[in-house]
Amino acid sequence: MAITLGPNQYGKAENRLVRIHRDTARHSIRDLNVSSALRGRFDAAHVHGDQRDVLPTDTQKNTVFALAKQVGVGALEEYGTVLADHFLAHAPAADGARISIEEYGWERIPVDGAGHDHSFVRAGQGIRTTVVDVEGRGADRRATVTSGIRDLTLLKSTGSEFAGFLVDEYTTLAETHDRILATSLVATWRYAHTDVDWDKTHGAVVALLLQRFAEIHSLALQQTLYGMGTAVLEAHDEIAEISFSAPNKHHFLVDLSPFGMENPGEVFVAADRPYGLIEATVTRD
Amino acid sequence: MAITLGPNQYGKAENRLVRIHRDTARHSIRDLNVSSALRGRFDAAHVHGDQRDVLPTDTQKNTVFALAKQVGVGALEEYGTVLADHFLAHAPAADGARISIEEYGWERIPVDGAGHDHSFVRAGQGIRTTVVDVEGRGADRRATVTSGIRDLTLLKSTGSEFAGFLVDEYTTLAETHDRILATSLVATWRYAHTDVDWDKTHGAVVALLLQRFAEIHSLALQQTLYGMGTAVLEAHDEIAEISFSAPNKHHFLVDLSPFGMENPGEVFVAADRPYGLIEATVTRD
Amino acid sequence: MAITLGPNQYGKAENRLVRIHRDTARHSIRDLNVSSALRGRFDAAHVHGDQRDVLPTDTQKNTVFALAKQVGVGALEEYGTVLADHFLAHAPAADGARISIEEYGWERIPVDGAGHDHSFVRAGQGIRTTVVDVEGRGADRRATVTSGIRDLTLLKSTGSEFAGFLVDEYTTLAETHDRILATSLVATWRYAHTDVDWDKTHGAVVALLLQRFAEIHSLALQQTLYGMGTAVLEAHDEIAEISFSAPNKHHFLVDLSPFGMENPGEVFVAADRPYGLIEATVTRD
Amino acid sequence: MAITLGPNQYGKAENRLVRIHRDTARHSIRDLNVSSALRGRFDAAHVHGDQRDVLPTDTQKNTVFALAKQVGVGALEEYGTVLADHFLAHAPAADGARISIEEYGWERIPVDGAGHDHSFVRAGQGIRTTVVDVEGRGADRRATVTSGIRDLTLLKSTGSEFAGFLVDEYTTLAETHDRILATSLVATWRYAHTDVDWDKTHGAVVALLLQRFAEIHSLALQQTLYGMGTAVLEAHDEIAEISFSAPNKHHFLVDLSPFGMENPGEVFVAADRPYGLIEATVTRD
Repeated sequence: MAITLGPNQYGKAENRLVRIHRDTARHSIRDLNVSSALRGRFDAAHVHGDQRDVLPTDTQKNTVFALAKQVGVGALEEYGTVLADHFLAHAPAADGARISIEEYGWERIPVDGAGHDHSFVRAGQGIRTTVVDVEGRGADRRATVTSGIRDLTLLKSTGSEFAGFLVDEYTTLAETHDRILATSLVATWRYAHTDVDWDKTHGAVVALLLQRFAEIHSLALQQTLYGMGTAVLEAHDEIAEISFSAPNKHHFLVDLSPFGMENPGEVFVAADRPYGLIEATVTRD
Repeated sequence: MAITLGPNQYGKAENRLVRIHRDTARHSIRDLNVSSALRGRFDAAHVHGDQRDVLPTDTQKNTVFALAKQVGVGALEEYGTVLADHFLAHAPAADGARISIEEYGWERIPVDGAGHDHSFVRAGQGIRTTVVDVEGRGADRRATVTSGIRDLTLLKSTGSEFAGFLVDEYTTLAETHDRILATSLVATWRYAHTDVDWDKTHGAVVALLLQRFAEIHSLALQQTLYGMGTAVLEAHDEIAEISFSAPNKHHFLVDLSPFGMENPGEVFVAADRPYGLIEATVTRD
Repeated sequence: MAITLGPNQYGKAENRLVRIHRDTARHSIRDLNVSSALRGRFDAAHVHGDQRDVLPTDTQKNTVFALAKQVGVGALEEYGTVLADHFLAHAPAADGARISIEEYGWERIPVDGAGHDHSFVRAGQGIRTTVVDVEGRGADRRATVTSGIRDLTLLKSTGSEFAGFLVDEYTTLAETHDRILATSLVATWRYAHTDVDWDKTHGAVVALLLQRFAEIHSLALQQTLYGMGTAVLEAHDEIAEISFSAPNKHHFLVDLSPFGMENPGEVFVAADRPYGLIEATVTRD
Repeated sequence: MAITLGPNQYGKAENRLVRIHRDTARHSIRDLNVSSALRGRFDAAHVHGDQRDVLPTDTQKNTVFALAKQVGVGALEEYGTVLADHFLAHAPAADGARISIEEYGWERIPVDGAGHDHSFVRAGQGIRTTVVDVEGRGADRRATVTSGIRDLTLLKSTGSEFAGFLVDEYTTLAETHDRILATSLVATWRYAHTDVDWDKTHGAVVALLLQRFAEIHSLALQQTLYGMGTAVLEAHDEIAEISFSAPNKHHFLVDLSPFGMENPGEVFVAADRPYGLIEATVTRD
C-alpha cells in the first residue's frame, strides 16, 4: 500500500481581535478570538514543500484584522461567514474554510446609575462561540453554522436525584434523592439555515437553557440535558440539533459523623477530578 | 555559622468548601477556596521529624468543613477569623495563623422575571479574597484582615493617554493621546480594625474602584490606580491602605496602512505577553 | 420532525491512578490519567431519567482502581483494553466503550551514579497517550487502538525555510530561508492490529519522530510533518496511519535596526498567540 | 492622616527572549522569560500622571532584546545583573531594579547516537529561576542574587512515614509508616556574594536536592526539606540561605476492601486539592 496524504487543514489560530465601534461617543466592543483553517488540495505543500497554493497563515491573520475594519464586526456568525468566503475566494486550492470564533462579553461599568460610554468590565456567564464552515463555491457552496456557549457554570443546591442505577460487583455508590447538581456546560447548536437573527437567537437559547436547568427536577444529568435540548428544539425551528458536553462537577457531602454532627445537605466539598462526563445530542428525526 | 531553621509555616491549601444555607426554600450559597497556615515553634518537626507539636494538615482540612457546619459561613472575613482563632487554640506551638479565602460568586438563574430559589449561575466580575492573619493569643492577640478582589478585568476604549515619558537610546514607543487601557486588577486593602460590615464594605469598595476607573481620564495606569486608591481611602476610614497589582493588558492598534486603510482606534490586537506590570500601594501617612 | 436522542456517551473522566509495582525493592511506577466512556442504548436515562441500564460513573471509577490491583498495569494499550472489555461485559446496554489514558513519565533519581530504587523525578519530553475503543462483543467485537504523544516540544534553530507562497492583497510576510521552526507536537497513530509490543513500539515511534524532525531540512511545517509521518509508516507495518496537530510556535526575529544592530538569526521573541496550526494525516492508500 | 503613595514598582513582565548562539554550526540556545521592575521616586507619575521620570515598559522590553544581542546571554544571573545595572544607569529616578528570569531547558535531539547540532527537544525536570535585585548605585550599590528551581516534581514510592502527630477533636488521619511522598518543589537560594560560577553551582545544587530527597528516610515533608536544605548549605559556602515551598501532593491509598482486596501500597489515587503546603527556610545563624 502506498503512503499518501490524508485529511489535512491549516490556518492561523487564536487571533485576538478587539473591534471598537466608535461612531458615537457611546462605544461598543466586540472582543474575539478568531481561528481560521483551510482544507483542500494542498498535497504539493506536504509532499514536496511547494508553497505555491498556500495562502500563508500570516496572511490569514492580516485578513482577520483588515476585514474587521472594512466590514465591521457584527454577530460572530456573520463575521465568520465573511471570512470563510473571503478565504475561499483568495485560495483557489482550498475546498473548504472553517472559521471558529469565541466572544468574551463585556458590560458597561455603572456610574451614577447608568452604563458608562466607554468603560467596561468583563462579564461572566460563559463564552459565546461559533464555527462557520463553508464547503465549496458558487452553486456548490454549502455553509454550516454551529453556535454555542462554553464555561457556563451552573449549580442546583437541591432538586436533583440519582437512584435506581445498574449495580455490579464494583458498585459502592449510595442512592440519593437530594444532591447538588453542577456542571460547566458546553452547548453547541447547529442551525438549519442561515436566515437567522444571530445575536437575538443566541441570547434566547442561552436564557432557555438556564431556565430549563433551573426548572427541571433532575433524575440524572443526562435527563436534565435532554430536557434542556428538547426545549431549545421546540422553541427554535431554525436549530437542527443541539449537543452538550457536560462535566458532572461533583460536590460531595462531607461526612461529619466522626465529629458527632449531621450534614443534611449543607456542607460539601467541590471535587476537581475525576468527574462524570456526559455527552449527548438532541436532534430532529 | 551554624545552620538553623528560618521562617516557616505549614497548612492545608485549597479546601474547596461549598456551604448551602437552606433554612428556607430559598437557598443561599457560599462557594469558597480556603487555605490555612500555621507558624511558630515547629523546629522539632523540621530538625528531628518529631510531629508531636504538629496539628496535621488533614485535621486542618476537617476543621474547615466541621466549623462550616457548626458556625455557618457568613462573610469570608468572619469565617477566616473563626478558623484562625480555632487553630491557635488547638495547636499550642503555633504563634500565628493565616487563613486565605477566595469566594466564587453565584447569581440566581432568572425564571419568569425572578431569581430561582435553588438554581444558580456563576457570576463574573472578579473573585473576592481575604487573608485573615492572627498573631498571638489573649492580651497579645493581633488580627489583621486584608480583603480584596482579583481577576477584575477592566477596559476603557478611550480616555487614556501615555506621553511625555523619559526617552533613551532604546526607546521606540510613540506618544499617544488615545489608546485602549485594560487590566486584570488585583486589589487588596488592609482594614484598620475589625469592626466592619464585611459584605457591605466589600461591595462598596469594588463599586467605587469600578466607578473611578471609568471616570478618571488616564494619563498612565499608575495615575489611574492612584486615583482609585485615593477614592477608597477617602470614602472608607476603616481601610488603612490599599495595594494594586495591575498588568497593563496591551491592546495594540493594528497597522492597516499596508492595505491602504486608516485605523482611528477601531481595530486592535489584544496581546498576551509581555505586559506592563504596575504595582503600587496607597496609604495614610 | 420528532425530537429524538442523537449520539451520546457517558463515563468518568480523569481518574488519576498511580500504580506502584513493588514485588522487589526496586519499585516501578505507572502514573496515569484514565477516562472511560460508554455508548449505546441509553435512551431511557436521557428521555425518562430511568437509570436501570446505567453503570454509574462512580462504579467506572472504582473499576479503574480495582482492576489496577487485580491485573496490574502494564502498557497503557493493554490496560485500556482490559477496562473496555470489562465495561462491555458489565453494562449490557452499552454497544461500545472508549478508554483514554495519558501517562506521565518518571525517571529514577541518580544517586552515586545509579538510579534510585524508589525515588523518582518527573520526566519531560511529552505525555504518552492512548485511546482504546472497543465496539461490539463476541464475534462482532472490534478493537481500535490509537496511541500517541502530546506536549512534545521541538525546535530547530536553523534548517527551516518558508518561501514561494501564494500572495494576495493582504500578504505582508517576507520570504525567509533561515528561521526558527518550533512546535508542541500532538501525534496519534492508529494501529492496524493489536498484536503489538506496545511499550517498545511507542518508544521507537517517538525516537523516529524526533530524529526525522532533526534531519529534515524544512520547507514548511507541513512538509516536515509529512516526512515524519512517512518515516513512521515505512518503519512500522503495524501502524495504519498517523495524524499530527502541530502549532507553529512562532519565534520572530527581533528588529534591532532602530538601535543600529543587525540580527542574523540570534535574538528572537517567542510569541504566544496567534499561532499557525497545521493538522495532517499520513495514511496508506 | 494624609493619603500618600506607598511602596511601588513597575516594569515589563514576561519578555519571551530566545537567544541562539551560532558562532559555529553547533548552535546553543537560551530560552528565557525575563521580567523587569524599577522602584524609586515615581510619585509624579502616580500623583500627577507626569511621566518625565518614567522609562516606559516598552523601552524596558526593547532593552531586554537589544542587550541580548550586544552582550550575549550567558548564565541567567549574569544577564540579569547586566539588565539591572543598565536600567539604574538610564532611569535616574529609580532607586532599585529587580530582574526576574526563568529558563526553559532544551536537550539536543539524539541522532545516530549523538546530539544534533541545531535541533532540540524541551527538557523536563523543572524550570531554572533567578531574581537579581540591585539597590543603589556606585559605592552604595548592593546586588542580591536569589536563584532556584520550580516545577521539580519528585516522588518516593516508599521510605516515608507520618506518625506521632498532635491529635484533637477533628483528627481522623491514621498514622502511617509507609506512604507515597510527592511534591512539586519550588526552591530558591540566596547567594552570599556574586563571585560564583552560576551554571555549575546551579547544576550542583539541583543534583544535591534530588539526591537528598532520594536518600532521606522521610518522617514528614518538613524534615525532608530541612535535610535537603542543610545539605545545600553544608556543601555551598556561597549560599546564605535556601527556602522551599512544597505542596504535599497527596497520593491516597485506594480502599479496595469493599471488593475483597488488600492494597499493600500498590494502588493510589493522586489528589489535586486540597494539598498540604510546607514552606520553610534553612539559614545560617
